[in-house]
Amino acid sequence: MKTLPRKLRYGMIGGGRGAFIGAVHRMAAALDGHIELAAGCFSADPAKSRASGADLHLDSARVYAGYAEMALREAARPPAERLDFVSIVTRNNTHLPIATAFLNAGFNIICEKPATLTLAEARTLRDLVRRTGKVFALAHNYTGYPMVKEARAAVRAGRLGRILKVVVEYPQGYAAAAAAAAAAAAADSRERDGAAAPISSWRADPAVAGASNCMADIGTHAANLARYITGLDLDALCADLAAFAGGALDDDGNCLLRFKGGARGILYASQISNGEENNLVIRVYGAKASLEWRQEHPNELIFKAADRPMQTWRRGNTYLSPEARQAARLPFGHPEAFIEAFANLYRSAAQAIADEVFGRKPPRAGYDFPTIDDGVRGMAFIETVVKSSRSRAKWTKLPQA
Amino acid sequence: MKTLPRKLRYGMIGGGRGAFIGAVHRMAAALDGHIELAAGCFSADPAKSRASGADLHLDSARVYAGYAEMALREAARPPAERLDFVSIVTRNNTHLPIATAFLNAGFNIICEKPATLTLAEARTLRDLVRRTGKVFALAHNYTGYPMVKEARAAVRAGRLGRILKVVVEYPQGYAAAAAAAAAAAAADSRERDGAAAPISSWRADPAVAGASNCMADIGTHAANLARYITGLDLDALCADLAAFAGGALDDDGNCLLRFKGGARGILYASQISNGEENNLVIRVYGAKASLEWRQEHPNELIFKAADRPMQTWRRGNTYLSPEARQAARLPFGHPEAFIEAFANLYRSAAQAIADEVFGRKPPRAGYDFPTIDDGVRGMAFIETVVKSSRSRAKWTKLPQA
Amino acid sequence: MKTLPRKLRYGMIGGGRGAFIGAVHRMAAALDGHIELAAGCFSADPAKSRASGADLHLDSARVYAGYAEMALREAARPPAERLDFVSIVTRNNTHLPIATAFLNAGFNIICEKPATLTLAEARTLRDLVRRTGKVFALAHNYTGYPMVKEARAAVRAGRLGRILKVVVEYPQGYAAAAAAAAAAAAADSRERDGAAAPISSWRADPAVAGASNCMADIGTHAANLARYITGLDLDALCADLAAFAGGALDDDGNCLLRFKGGARGILYASQISNGEENNLVIRVYGAKASLEWRQEHPNELIFKAADRPMQTWRRGNTYLSPEARQAARLPFGHPEAFIEAFANLYRSAAQAIADEVFGRKPPRAGYDFPTIDDGVRGMAFIETVVKSSRSRAKWTKLPQA
Amino acid sequence: MKTLPRKLRYGMIGGGRGAFIGAVHRMAAALDGHIELAAGCFSADPAKSRASGADLHLDSARVYAGYAEMALREAARPPAERLDFVSIVTRNNTHLPIATAFLNAGFNIICEKPATLTLAEARTLRDLVRRTGKVFALAHNYTGYPMVKEARAAVRAGRLGRILKVVVEYPQGYAAAAAAAAAAAAADSRERDGAAAPISSWRADPAVAGASNCMADIGTHAANLARYITGLDLDALCADLAAFAGGALDDDGNCLLRFKGGARGILYASQISNGEENNLVIRVYGAKASLEWRQEHPNELIFKAADRPMQTWRRGNTYLSPEARQAARLPFGHPEAFIEAFANLYRSAAQAIADEVFGRKPPRAGYDFPTIDDGVRGMAFIETVVKSSRSRAKWTKLPQA
Repeated sequence: MKTLPRKLRYGMIGGGRGAFIGAVHRMAAALDGHIELAAGCFSADPAKSRASGADLHLDSARVYAGYAEMALREAARPPAERLDFVSIVTRNNTHLPIATAFLNAGFNIICEKPATLTLAEARTLRDLVRRTGKVFALAHNYTGYPMVKEARAAVRAGRLGRILKVVVEYPQGYAAAAAAAAAAAAADSRERDGAAAPISSWRADPAVAGASNCMADIGTHAANLARYITGLDLDALCADLAAFAGGALDDDGNCLLRFKGGARGILYASQISNGEENNLVIRVYGAKASLEWRQEHPNELIFKAADRPMQTWRRGNTYLSPEARQAARLPFGHPEAFIEAFANLYRSAAQAIADEVFGRKPPRAGYDFPTIDDGVRGMAFIETVVKSSRSRAKWTKLPQA
Repeated sequence: MKTLPRKLRYGMIGGGRGAFIGAVHRMAAALDGHIELAAGCFSADPAKSRASGADLHLDSARVYAGYAEMALREAARPPAERLDFVSIVTRNNTHLPIATAFLNAGFNIICEKPATLTLAEARTLRDLVRRTGKVFALAHNYTGYPMVKEARAAVRAGRLGRILKVVVEYPQGYAAAAAAAAAAAAADSRERDGAAAPISSWRADPAVAGASNCMADIGTHAANLARYITGLDLDALCADLAAFAGGALDDDGNCLLRFKGGARGILYASQISNGEENNLVIRVYGAKASLEWRQEHPNELIFKAADRPMQTWRRGNTYLSPEARQAARLPFGHPEAFIEAFANLYRSAAQAIADEVFGRKPPRAGYDFPTIDDGVRGMAFIETVVKSSRSRAKWTKLPQA
Repeated sequence: MKTLPRKLRYGMIGGGRGAFIGAVHRMAAALDGHIELAAGCFSADPAKSRASGADLHLDSARVYAGYAEMALREAARPPAERLDFVSIVTRNNTHLPIATAFLNAGFNIICEKPATLTLAEARTLRDLVRRTGKVFALAHNYTGYPMVKEARAAVRAGRLGRILKVVVEYPQGYAAAAAAAAAAAAADSRERDGAAAPISSWRADPAVAGASNCMADIGTHAANLARYITGLDLDALCADLAAFAGGALDDDGNCLLRFKGGARGILYASQISNGEENNLVIRVYGAKASLEWRQEHPNELIFKAADRPMQTWRRGNTYLSPEARQAARLPFGHPEAFIEAFANLYRSAAQAIADEVFGRKPPRAGYDFPTIDDGVRGMAFIETVVKSSRSRAKWTKLPQA
Repeated sequence: MKTLPRKLRYGMIGGGRGAFIGAVHRMAAALDGHIELAAGCFSADPAKSRASGADLHLDSARVYAGYAEMALREAARPPAERLDFVSIVTRNNTHLPIATAFLNAGFNIICEKPATLTLAEARTLRDLVRRTGKVFALAHNYTGYPMVKEARAAVRAGRLGRILKVVVEYPQGYAAAAAAAAAAAAADSRERDGAAAPISSWRADPAVAGASNCMADIGTHAANLARYITGLDLDALCADLAAFAGGALDDDGNCLLRFKGGARGILYASQISNGEENNLVIRVYGAKASLEWRQEHPNELIFKAADRPMQTWRRGNTYLSPEARQAARLPFGHPEAFIEAFANLYRSAAQAIADEVFGRKPPRAGYDFPTIDDGVRGMAFIETVVKSSRSRAKWTKLPQA
C-alpha cells in the first residue's frame, strides 16, 4: 500500500452493540493502523446508537440515530474532520437509500452484500456510483484471503489450462434446528396443525432480505468467489431451492452451472446442513491442473494434476504470486484468517479511497476489490436462481448486467 | 460368518492378465481362506486365458476360452469338484449373456456393475434370477466398507433424524489428459480440423458400455451408496452430462436429486477432474445430525451436529454398531481398505451362496450385499440421467423398477 | 472486558520498519479499538525511528531514538497524554534495562519473550515488578488462542483425569539452508577449510540472545504452553542440543521431561526441520482422556479417549468453556488465528492495566496472561536445558524460581 | 514377483482361534493366491489346535498340538506335500526354540517380532540361520507399505540430502484404563493398600516378553522403521521408561537418539496414550528436504522442503519409485492398508523362499524384507533402552551386533 499522509477517517451505518458483521468491519479497518472510526449511526434506536458510539470511544457529537442526518451533518464538517468513506453494514433493503444518501453527499462507500434488495436497485446504484465517481466496495470478503488471490493468480498465469469444471459449495448448519422442528411438525401433520418453526432472522423476511435468504446471504459469496478466481461469467443455471425450515424464503439451494466458454459446474449453499459451520469450499478443475481451497483452513491451497504429486501451497511463502505475498501480514506458519482477509478488502478499498481523496493517480493495474459491478452480478445471480427454481429447474440464462 | 464344511469353489469369467478388477475379485475371494478359485475363462483369446490360468495355478483342464463351453462343462463336473458360483468381471454388454448361461446351468453369480447394458436387460436378468432362485450379487463394493455399514446403521437407528439432504460426489481425473487434448483441439479449431482425443477405453463405446460411460462406471456407485446408507429411493433428477474429452459418451455429469419423502440432493461423477484419484465422498444431512464419509480415508466416519463436538468414528472400536464391527478384520488403528471392503462383499455373498449350496436356512435378518434389484435400480438411474440430460436437464422421474 | 472510559495509550520500544514482531504487537493492540499507539522508540537509528513513527501517523514529538529519553519525557507528559503502558519488542539483552527504565518511570509493561538474557536477570526483573506494583505481561502469545484456553479449562475441569504424559514439539525449518550449507562444508572438510554458514540472525549471538537460540526463541514457548495447559511444573529434564548450522548456539534440541507429580514428557524445538513452518503441537495424555492442539490449525482441539469417538472441538461453539468462548471474536466456522490470539493477550493484559490505571479492583478470578513469574520459569528452563545438554544429557533438576 | 511353478505351502505355529496376528499372517499369505496353508500347530491345547485347523479347512492329519512333533512329521512328508516354510506367530520366549526346531528340520521361516527373548538368543538364532542357509524373515510389517518403500527410495536417491534428524513415535492407548486404575490406586494410597491394575497381557510378563513390554512390542517397530527408511544405524541413546499401569515392565518410553554419522532423533512408544490407536508416525528431516509418513493414513507420504510447496505423494502413481510401484496392488485412489503391506512382506520373503526351494539364483539387488540381522538389531535396541533407563537416562552406546 502506498504511504498515507494521514489516517483515513470513516463512519459506520449499522453495526451497533451485538451486531456481528459491523464489529468485523471495525476490526478489519483498525488492523493496520491506517483507518480510524470517527462517526457512526449504529442503530435507528437513538439510545442504542449512543451507547454503541460510547463503547467505541467516539465523540458523541458524531453519533447519530438517522443516516440522513449523519450524511448531512458529516458532509458539513471541515476538511480536517471530514470522513473519507462510510461503511454500510445494515440490512439488504436499506443499502440503496443509505448508499444514495452518502454518495450524493460526496462520500466513498464500503457496503455489505448483497448490494441491494433487487437487481433493478443494483442497476440504479451502479448508475449512481458511476455518476458520482466515488469508490464503492462490496464486502465479498472471501476474495481477501491471500490463498484465494493465489488461486486467481494461478488461473491467470495459465497454470490450470482451460477451465472445465467448477464446484463451489457453502454449507452452514445454523438453521438445522429450525429444519428439525419443521420436519417434526410435518411428521405430526395428520394429527395436528403443527406450525413449522421458521428461521428467526430478518434474512427470512422477503421485505427485508429480498427474493432469497440462503442464496442471497451465502450463495452470492460462492458465486462471487467462483468468478473472482476463474474470471468466468455464468451463462445459465438450473436451480432447486428448498425451505426446509418452512419459511417464505430458501434455506437451501442446489444449482447446475454453465459458464460462458463451456465450463460446467455445481454451486450449492445451505443453512440446514447440520453440523456444518461456514464450510465454503471451491474446486476448480482445469485441463492442465486443478485447485481446491477451503475457507475453514484458509492458509492452504491444494494444487492437483494427474500424474504429479499433489501440492499444498501455504500462505507466506516465497514461491507464491506477488498478489498472495502482498496480501499476507505474517510469515508462513503463523496462520491468518477471516479478519485479516477482511482487512485486505479494506486495505484494497482504502487504496482507491486514498487515491480519490488525495487526488492521486490510480495504479495502472487497477484495484483488487469487489465493486458495484460485482453487486449487479450478484443480484442477477440471485434473481436467476429464484426464477429457475420457480420454473422447475429450467436452464435459465443470466440477464445482461 | 457361519462355519463352512469346506471351502467354496468358484470360477471366473474375465479378469485375465493385466485386468484390474478381476485381480481385485480374486484377492477379495482369497482373503479369508474360505473360497478357492477352481476354473476360469479369463479371456476370449485362448492363449491369454491359458496363460492367466497357469499364473493362477489352475488345472489347465478347467481353463476355457469360451464362457458357454465353461458353463456346460463345469455343470457336468461331479459334486466334489463342482463350482459353487462364478464371478463375472467382463464388459457391460456381456453380463447378461454370461449370467444367463451360468444361471441356467445352475450356478450362483457375483457380477460386476453396472448389471447389464440397458434397463430392459436388467429386468430380464432380474426375472431369470428370481426364476432360478440362485444368488446374484452385484459388485457395488463400496457398500462393503465397515464405516459405510456404520453410516447405514446410524441412519437406521435414527441418529440423523429425518434426512434432508444428500451430497454424493465421485470425481476421478484419469481422463484429464484426453480432455486437455480435446480442449487444445477446440482452441485450434479455426485453423485446422483437429480431431479430439477420445478416452481410450471400452467404457467410451456405447455398444460395449451402454448409454453412459462415467455415470455407468462410477455414477452408479455413488447412487447405490446413497441408497445403501439412507434407504431413500430417488424420485426424480435433473442432469447435465458432458463429454469434455470429445467421446460419444459422458465423462462428467452433474445431477440435482429429489428423493421420495422430500430429501434433496446433489450427485456428480467425473473422469476429467484433474488430479482427483478416486475421491468418492458422501455427506448425509439429517434433522438431528449428519454424516460424512470419504472413500480415500475409509476408516473414519464423521458425525456432526449443530452445537455438539464433531465426532470421528473409527473402524474397529467397541462403540460402533454390530454391523460395522463384524465387517472389520483388524483392531482399530490398523487400517483396512479397498480389498478388505471388497472381501466383505464376497463374504456376505458367500454366506448366501453357502446357505443355498448346503441347503441351510437364510438368516432371519437377511443378507447384506447388493442384488439384482440394485442392478435394476442402477440401470434405471443411468437411463434417467441420460434422458434428463438430453431434455436439457428437465426434472425426470425415475421409472418403476 | 469491562468498559473503558477511554482508549488506553501505549508506546513501543523496538518494532521499526521491517520488524516482524513489533508489527504483530501493533495489530494485536489495535484490533479491538480500545488501545492506541501514542509514542515510540522504534530504532536506535534516529532516522529509522522517525520514519517508522511517520508510517504509523505518530506525532513526531513522541518519536524517540533512545528508550531512556523516551521514559523520561513520556513520564513528564500531562495525565491526558500519558502512556498507560509500553510494549518492549527488542532483542533479549535489552529487555531488562528497558523494562527497568519504564517500570521506574511508572509505566506498565508488555514485553517480548524470553524475559531477559539470563535467569539472574529475570529474578532481578521480577523483584522490580513486585516492588513497583506495575503490570508486566510476557508475550507467550500462544496462550491467547481460544482453543488453548479450552485445553486448560478441560484439564482444570478434570476431563483428562490425572495427566500421565505431555508431548510438545515446535519444529521450524527456516535454518535448514544454513544447516545444509554446514553439512556440505563438513562433507568437504577433508579437501578444504570450508567455513560453515551460520544462522544469520542476532538469535545466534550469545551476547544478544543468551545461552540459547532455538530453545530460548521457541522452546520456551513450548514449555510455557505445556505449563499453561496442564498446570504442571517441570521437575527435571534431560536435554540434547545441537547446532547443525554450525553456530555458537543451538538450532535444534530434544528433551525428556519429568513433571512434578509424576507425569513424563518430551519437548523438542528445532529451526532446521526442513519444510516445517511454525508447527507447534501439544498432546496431553491423561488417565481419562487426552487432548491435541496444532498451532497451524488453531481453531480445533482434538479430544480423544479409548473406546469413545474422537471429538474435534471447534472454536466459537456453545459447548466450550466460558474461557474459550470469551476469547473468541467470531462465530464458529469463521476462523481466527495468530493475530487474534495475540490480541487476546493484549486484551487480558489491558484489563489489568486499566484496573491499575483507573484504580479499579482486580477481578476475583485474577487475570489470564503470562507474567514475570512465567518469565523466570522460562529462563530457568533455558538454563537447565543448556546445563543438561552440556553434562551429556544428565537428568537435571529445574532450579527454584 | 517371478512366476512360481506351483503355490508355496506353509505351516503355522501359533495363531489359533481368537489370535490377532496369526490371522493377519494368514490373510497376508493368502492375498495373492500363490501361498497356501497346509499344516499347523495353532495352540498347545490339542482341542483348540484341532478346532482352528478345521476352521481353516486343513487336513486334520497335519494339525498338531506340539511344534516339535510338527517339525518332525512335516519334515518326513514327501516332496509333493512338503512345506516350503513355516510362520511363527507365538510369544517372544518361544521364538528361538521353535525356529531352531524348524530350521534344523530344513524349513524356511517367517517369524513374528521381536526376534527372541534376549539379545543373546537373537545372536544364537542368527548363527543358526547362517549355518542352515535358510530364509528367515522377521515380521516388521510396516516396512511393507508402498509409501514406506518410497520414503526409503527417496532417501537413497539423495532427495533429502544428509539426514539431520529423525522423529519416530508410536503411541497406542489400549493400556490407558490400566494406567487410570493405577493412578486412582496411587491417589488412594494413603488410605489403603490399593493394588494397581496391571496390563492383562503376556506382554507384561518378563518371563514371556523379555526385558520390555512396550519397547519390545512397538518400540522395535519404530526403531526398525527409522533404520529401514534412513539406512542409519543408532550410535547411542538415552531412555526414560515408565510403567504407568504398575506392571513389571514398561508401558511407555521416551528416547533421545544419536545416529552414526551425526543425525539426532527422538523415538517414543506408548501404550497409555489415551485415545491413540496405532499412531505410528515418522518424520525424517534432511538438509535438502524432509519426509513424513503416518501409518493410519498409509497411502500418503508428505515431502517438505523450505521455500517449496509441500507435496503429498500418493500410492499408485507413476511418479513414484519402482520399489513403491511394485509394492502396490491397486491403482491410485483405491486405498491399500495394513494387510496389503503385510502381504508385501510375505511376497518379498516368498520370493527368497521360492528361489531357495526351486534352486533359483537370487536377484542381483537382493531381497527386500527384514532378516535375522534386523532381529539382532531390535534386541540390541531393547536391551540398550532398558539399560539406559535403569542408569537414569545415561547416554548408552548400542552394542556391536
